[in-house]
Amino acid sequence: MEAFPFSTGVTVRFAETDAQGVAHNSNYPIWFEVARVAYLREYAGGYNAVREKGVEILVTETYARYLSPAFFDDGIEIGARCRAVRGARFRFEYEVRRGDELLAEGWTAHACVDAETLRPTRVPGWLTEAIGRAEG
Amino acid sequence: MEAFPFSTGVTVRFAETDAQGVAHNSNYPIWFEVARVAYLREYAGGYNAVREKGVEILVTETYARYLSPAFFDDGIEIGARCRAVRGARFRFEYEVRRGDELLAEGWTAHACVDAETLRPTRVPGWLTEAIGRAEG
Amino acid sequence: MEAFPFSTGVTVRFAETDAQGVAHNSNYPIWFEVARVAYLREYAGGYNAVREKGVEILVTETYARYLSPAFFDDGIEIGARCRAVRGARFRFEYEVRRGDELLAEGWTAHACVDAETLRPTRVPGWLTEAIGRAEG
Amino acid sequence: MEAFPFSTGVTVRFAETDAQGVAHNSNYPIWFEVARVAYLREYAGGYNAVREKGVEILVTETYARYLSPAFFDDGIEIGARCRAVRGARFRFEYEVRRGDELLAEGWTAHACVDAETLRPTRVPGWLTEAIGRAEG
Repeated sequence: MEAFPFSTGVTVRFAETDAQGVAHNSNYPIWFEVARVAYLREYAGGYNAVREKGVEILVTETYARYLSPAFFDDGIEIGARCRAVRGARFRFEYEVRRGDELLAEGWTAHACVDAETLRPTRVPGWLTEAIGRAEG
Repeated sequence: MEAFPFSTGVTVRFAETDAQGVAHNSNYPIWFEVARVAYLREYAGGYNAVREKGVEILVTETYARYLSPAFFDDGIEIGARCRAVRGARFRFEYEVRRGDELLAEGWTAHACVDAETLRPTRVPGWLTEAIGRAEG
Repeated sequence: MEAFPFSTGVTVRFAETDAQGVAHNSNYPIWFEVARVAYLREYAGGYNAVREKGVEILVTETYARYLSPAFFDDGIEIGARCRAVRGARFRFEYEVRRGDELLAEGWTAHACVDAETLRPTRVPGWLTEAIGRAEG
Repeated sequence: MEAFPFSTGVTVRFAETDAQGVAHNSNYPIWFEVARVAYLREYAGGYNAVREKGVEILVTETYARYLSPAFFDDGIEIGARCRAVRGARFRFEYEVRRGDELLAEGWTAHACVDAETLRPTRVPGWLTEAIGRAEG
């Protein structure tokens, strides 16, 4: 897998652990979202900027593969990159690392909809351009 | 403590446990809410009915006391009752039981606000009456 | 898609909604788990029975596809079935319905490990048999 | 209220919002915990250091008062301080701020128990001293 040019740090919260003593799998989509939001803040003026322009971003699919558990108080890095912008759709890919160790990887698929009508709308040009600059 | 005439059942989810092997304390306000919503469904046409009448119910305070832990897959009962309706404000009291054992108790304080202006608004008469009938 | 012989009901909690006004995507893996746990309770003596026999079930992958949003207080049904038991691994498939409407579908992949050593261990015969009876 | 000498920053996650468009009340006990863990990391070698010495810290009570909502992507500061160490018990106080604005305040009560027997055990001397140094 290629490098992730963008990443953001998260410390595993005690509330995120489960009775197996590890971070529960339902936290990974939340961490993916934290990284996606940080990515959009860095490159596209923030998720609120997208919403203020009348576009809502929906999550249409989530995939995650867990290779090694994350533990309470671990400092982990969530890498994120945006791929495959086409029409109303795009995709984010993620990896979760603790130092050099890959803990999990995954992706989410997204659709842009008009915030009023909830109908699909093309990924706005300024967002495509912002992503292009980030990933170029 | 007097009896709770209304209660609703919850089964402790694995995702709700933490690395101490018990249900994490942040779940209790959620279970309180589950019971409050079920109470309003039973006696006042449901929380959505409240919202549709242009009233938003805010949570202004939460208190919980944990006496004994709840474990994964435990069937627990959340008792709820409404108290002290005054002006825009009211209060719910709760208890969490596993069979005869009291696991936790607590209360939440609430304010009614106009959904448009977010200004305090009297607890609607029909809601006060519904609560009166429930608690009478 | 074939029928799901087993399903369990969940009511969408207010705490599970997000600022888009719908159930947040991170709840679906939790609902999948609720259905998986209920399935194992129904057919295999419960997840705690599995753990008490020294076997820990890990989640190794999660996939979900969201077709239509779930809203606060919706009564939804989570269908679950077990597939593809092989060696230490098996897979659950899910669908989330509100009445006749399919809201989401997904699957999780699992590995059995020895609770002491955390090394992969074959899916226990009694569990394979229980699943066979459930799915036959 | 006196100043909080210690605080830690949190950015409100989209997953933490609810259908009222604000951070759900159940996140405040989690943020309190994030600040408590960061406090113990700063002054007492971390929560894992406490656990490794055979002491488990239980949460016995939680109180929170919500003054003003927190919104998605808000950068907030959670102030924490430790009070009233007595026998096996102590107490943390918190405030949640967005810049100069106080959004919420609260406290949690705690008991130290022996990790093996789960019986109450005096707050360890080194922890009392660490807290004394932090708060002095």
